[in-house]
Amino acid sequence: MAEQPNATVTYGVINETTEFEHRVAITPDIVTRLRKSAVQCIIEAGAGLAAHYTDDDYRAAGAEVADKATVLTRSDCIATVSRLPLADLDQVREGTWVIGMLQSFTDDAYIQELNKRALVGIAMERLPRQLSAAQSMDEMTSQNSVMGYQAVLVAAQAYGSFLPMMTTAAGTIRPAKVLVLGAGIAGLQAIGTAKRLGARVSAYDVRPAAREEVKSLGADFLELGIDLSQGQGEGGYARALSEEERQAQQAAVDRQAAQFDIVITTAQVPGRKPPVLLTAAGVQAMKRGSVIVDCAASEFGGNVEGSSIGTTITPQGVTLIGAPYLASEVATTASALLARNLADVCAHMVRDGKLSIDADDEIDQALVVTEQSN
Amino acid sequence: MAEQPNATVTYGVINETTEFEHRVAITPDIVTRLRKSAVQCIIEAGAGLAAHYTDDDYRAAGAEVADKATVLTRSDCIATVSRLPLADLDQVREGTWVIGMLQSFTDDAYIQELNKRALVGIAMERLPRQLSAAQSMDEMTSQNSVMGYQAVLVAAQAYGSFLPMMTTAAGTIRPAKVLVLGAGIAGLQAIGTAKRLGARVSAYDVRPAAREEVKSLGADFLELGIDLSQGQGEGGYARALSEEERQAQQAAVDRQAAQFDIVITTAQVPGRKPPVLLTAAGVQAMKRGSVIVDCAASEFGGNVEGSSIGTTITPQGVTLIGAPYLASEVATTASALLARNLADVCAHMVRDGKLSIDADDEIDQALVVTEQSN
Repeated sequence: MAEQPNATVTYGVINETTEFEHRVAITPDIVTRLRKSAVQCIIEAGAGLAAHYTDDDYRAAGAEVADKATVLTRSDCIATVSRLPLADLDQVREGTWVIGMLQSFTDDAYIQELNKRALVGIAMERLPRQLSAAQSMDEMTSQNSVMGYQAVLVAAQAYGSFLPMMTTAAGTIRPAKVLVLGAGIAGLQAIGTAKRLGARVSAYDVRPAAREEVKSLGADFLELGIDLSQGQGEGGYARALSEEERQAQQAAVDRQAAQFDIVITTAQVPGRKPPVLLTAAGVQAMKRGSVIVDCAASEFGGNVEGSSIGTTITPQGVTLIGAPYLASEVATTASALLARNLADVCAHMVRDGKLSIDADDEIDQALVVTEQSN
Repeated sequence: MAEQPNATVTYGVINETTEFEHRVAITPDIVTRLRKSAVQCIIEAGAGLAAHYTDDDYRAAGAEVADKATVLTRSDCIATVSRLPLADLDQVREGTWVIGMLQSFTDDAYIQELNKRALVGIAMERLPRQLSAAQSMDEMTSQNSVMGYQAVLVAAQAYGSFLPMMTTAAGTIRPAKVLVLGAGIAGLQAIGTAKRLGARVSAYDVRPAAREEVKSLGADFLELGIDLSQGQGEGGYARALSEEERQAQQAAVDRQAAQFDIVITTAQVPGRKPPVLLTAAGVQAMKRGSVIVDCAASEFGGNVEGSSIGTTITPQGVTLIGAPYLASEVATTASALLARNLADVCAHMVRDGKLSIDADDEIDQALVVTEQSN
């Protein structure tokens, strides 16, 4: 399909497929959507295949499919699932915009690399998600929602019994007891999915507001019997706990976890090591056959002490699954949502037919992490 | 725990754990239950571990835990998930009862081996499941029910999108369209589980009675536009179709399958090669990203042409999962149910404190496959 006659911004997407990453930063629907904002898309061949979007799908929607070097050099703005590697930054033109999860809270050196090359860095992790205008750009929410859904499927498949109660001629199977630790977006989606499957669900979060959210989904709020009030931090994220609070919480959660069949942990604090919510002692106290899914697992540890990426079975027969890649596993939907998030950020910043930063705009103020005069 | 003072029948279970088999033919609850029928249990060490039942659990319920040779030589009756291998048959005493899925419809040679050793073969696959007295013994039903549940979890986890409809700030995700082929016990459980997860479900079965069963679960009955009436065979199983009927069905299902995101096939006819319900052409016509779970996959083929055990992705991007071991994956519950099935068969045949066959009993008549004078 021919280029938009009046398209003035070129939006590029490269192939980020790896063993653990199946998502793509754009979908055919979003190609069509961006054309309405006079944005033309150029996409690396094969970029969407792991998420089941073909080059022909993109072409049919009006995108150009090209090799990687062409995408990097021709684009005014490059959108990514994670962020462009330094080697790729070397190939883009001065003034190119790069939109993605830039890890700006923890990796200032990367931002300096952008500055050094006179690039414009748009950091999705800094979205002021509480603004209603920002909601369709909220990648953290969309991807965590997918993660919470998949966490329950992974747990249910690994668990040796049914989630729902079943009454059969050969006896009644009691419903599984599921505990969700961290009742943010991922946790709430996990609660909803586990409820759908018929499990008895409890949840816990340090934020006081979480209690009502959990109950509104029909789950029980886990009573720890300790005071961790004032747990809500800036921007609606969980704040980091003090060491004393963390220890009190750990001990209480450890005590309670033993009664559950499945524990799903989802507590991530952007830019920090994930808080430990279940210690090795807590894991050890759990019943043989229990399943834990730690969505915050990483090379720096996760919400569960001793968790690592992948599946391990403890000597006590507890299956511990460290699963930071769950959103990527639901690649088609996860891509559709994040492509919309990224594209809406771009469209927000297309003003009078070109990309520009409005110093008075709250979204722009938050997202732009590089130094530039507009 | 001490042996029952009045226990007159010894019921043995060996360890059948393999890569694909995690079930065990007895659970601690059933040990307790059998003691009430004056049946004492002897269990091979480690037999229940893969299903999360420990030797201590069995001992606490009143069973003896022993090595395999002891179980084989001391038991009056040996219950199995599958059936005792010939090498094990050599070790049991004359007159020992062996209860399990003996494959008596297809493997007469095995039954002759039992006769040669003067053993009593009780073939679970021959249960007259339509009798109400037989319902708690119905292993086919209990295990197929578990299989149908797990088939949906496997399909959902492999599928790149959500099963439920989701309305988010970044767009609405339509619900997945699931087609269940074969609406027996496994199929009905698959329908129920997919409905729980929020999918739009259709189903098909050659038995006319299936239409109402499918609709009563809130699913649509797939209209093929061809006449395959009179599809119900003996004992409530699907009968084998004629070649002409099979081809007409195949062509119609192939045409329709392309509109679905997930296809789950569950059509097994005991003792026969599973019928092909979806041809290679049907698979090829399905959308990129679709998922097929073939519960009837075997070394002799399955319900889906070209399926084999394990996961393959076709050149057209369809994920084809041949999964005959799904009941074993839900080992704790599957074992609990089949242990009850097997134990109830045993208890049914304990008369005046010993195992005996009642030639006038419909269940006995059906299950006993060896030649013996009672």
